[in-house]
Amino acid sequence: MNIAQPYLLFLGDVTDPLAAKTARGIVKWRPDACLGELRLTEQTVSLGLEPLSLADAKAMGAKTLVIGTANAGGVIPPSWVETLVQAAQLGFDIASGMHQRLGDIPELASLATQNAIQLFDVRHYDAQLDVGTGKKRQGKRLLTVGTDCSVGKMFSALAIEKALVDQGCQARFKATGQTGILIEGQGISVDAVVADFISGAVEKLSPSFTEHEWDIIEGQGSLFNPSFAGVSLGLLHGAQPDALVLCHEVGREHIRHLPHAALPSIEQTIEANLMAARVTNPAVQFVGICLNTSNISGKEAKALCLEWSEEFGMPVTDPVRFGVDAIADRVRSL
Amino acid sequence: MNIAQPYLLFLGDVTDPLAAKTARGIVKWRPDACLGELRLTEQTVSLGLEPLSLADAKAMGAKTLVIGTANAGGVIPPSWVETLVQAAQLGFDIASGMHQRLGDIPELASLATQNAIQLFDVRHYDAQLDVGTGKKRQGKRLLTVGTDCSVGKMFSALAIEKALVDQGCQARFKATGQTGILIEGQGISVDAVVADFISGAVEKLSPSFTEHEWDIIEGQGSLFNPSFAGVSLGLLHGAQPDALVLCHEVGREHIRHLPHAALPSIEQTIEANLMAARVTNPAVQFVGICLNTSNISGKEAKALCLEWSEEFGMPVTDPVRFGVDAIADRVRSL
Repeated sequence: MNIAQPYLLFLGDVTDPLAAKTARGIVKWRPDACLGELRLTEQTVSLGLEPLSLADAKAMGAKTLVIGTANAGGVIPPSWVETLVQAAQLGFDIASGMHQRLGDIPELASLATQNAIQLFDVRHYDAQLDVGTGKKRQGKRLLTVGTDCSVGKMFSALAIEKALVDQGCQARFKATGQTGILIEGQGISVDAVVADFISGAVEKLSPSFTEHEWDIIEGQGSLFNPSFAGVSLGLLHGAQPDALVLCHEVGREHIRHLPHAALPSIEQTIEANLMAARVTNPAVQFVGICLNTSNISGKEAKALCLEWSEEFGMPVTDPVRFGVDAIADRVRSL
Repeated sequence: MNIAQPYLLFLGDVTDPLAAKTARGIVKWRPDACLGELRLTEQTVSLGLEPLSLADAKAMGAKTLVIGTANAGGVIPPSWVETLVQAAQLGFDIASGMHQRLGDIPELASLATQNAIQLFDVRHYDAQLDVGTGKKRQGKRLLTVGTDCSVGKMFSALAIEKALVDQGCQARFKATGQTGILIEGQGISVDAVVADFISGAVEKLSPSFTEHEWDIIEGQGSLFNPSFAGVSLGLLHGAQPDALVLCHEVGREHIRHLPHAALPSIEQTIEANLMAARVTNPAVQFVGICLNTSNISGKEAKALCLEWSEEFGMPVTDPVRFGVDAIADRVRSL
């Protein structure tokens, strides 16, 4: 997948700010890639970008209309179809993180078949892959891992990439999930590939390189999440990381959506990830812990980060509250 | 997948005995399911079954023509198509472990679309699955795990199922790979499902049960195989095994096909599997080790099994040379 930027962000008619999380992520991390926004109604959530018509955005150079919203079923609402078809007729590529494929809309499928436009269903992966090998590749890699899903692995990876770049280090974010792919414009949704090819997909996503310094790879799931751990392990082996960053939400009581499944301790998570990662990189080490501390006060968070920094012998931070400069320093020292 | 038995085993025109491994496995483990064999030439490998024409086999009650051979590309040779089409016209279902889909042959696709017959491409999995949950299910489960691929996990599972049944225990083999599925007539090829659904596929394959005593689940890959470990971990979590059996080939020097990848020790394999399996079943335990000792003499093998039985405190055997009765005893004692 290689989604052309800049984007026009399409918000449809969603009124729930949470439903526009993907669009917000794109604006936060790649503001220069966002020319403007397109909303279908006055009530639709706004990102504060310039409101643009399809024609105006096209004239300004927009390449791709990105569906920046999510809904429960992942189905494209009928009320959006007219706009999507108009966009395609104007020559926009279209990118979507919905479960329903854009090609299910006949007019879009027809234009894509004629190679007039490209459709990107980032939740799916159809291209051919090879089986992973675990062979040593050139270049250094950092992977974010977690105690669970949705604990900040994408956010932390993007924050570390940014901190490294700000410090003059050539780092590149490698997206493994749908939001990350829309942010970066490329990547592979590793949970959407056929199971045999998980590690192979990551080897393809982050091949041997010598032209820059670090690939910062977005983690998925957790070795302790009974729904998705297979993806996490294949991703860990495929990434053959030199550096790991552990992500955790303070106060989470059990594995997300699974009240019967206990959350692992920080120690367990470190131990299990190191043991597994050594299969493809015996020199792997943890370089930091990123906490989501939104459930406690800033003062408590500061104290916790200090305490755990001493306990685990590495930088511990909340990327939102305190940034990740200390982790970036540690990465650059490797 | 639910492949109707009895089978007529189709051997095409293969002359390499190794290429007929799948057919041999079916004959070995499910002799009563095999009415006869169909060979295209005099030179074709024989399984020693009764040679039957399509019409004769049909008259004797054969339900499915099973392609019991493998080749490097996984493509169905043009010289087989006429026979496959004739079989379908006679009302045979057709099952194949080839990579190329049976539905790529237009006459077969057409008959399948009319529901005249069913086509089973056991290397693929197209049906909808749910994400795994790790919720405790009723019934007891045994899973075979390994130091690597191709160390006897399917063979050991089938041998343990047979020993248990011979001892009067109600055990059922649950197939997770193509050969196992053709042997059992049902199963899910877990390495062919979308990565998000590995553990969910196993939860579907071995749901809650009270009508029998044990599900004996065929393992895949190894937690230490950098190509396929994601599949192995999802399978381990989805199986939530009460009992594990470790499979290993004596004398193997590195991970199969990967000279750069070291084989794990028996201790490492036990530790990593127990740690991971506890996520969905804290009471998991190893009940035996199955060795492929074909690289050493029978005397050396006997001595090694005795030595390791003491060292690891569980039955250690070569299923081919010495059977698995001691492991079945241990299983029944749980």
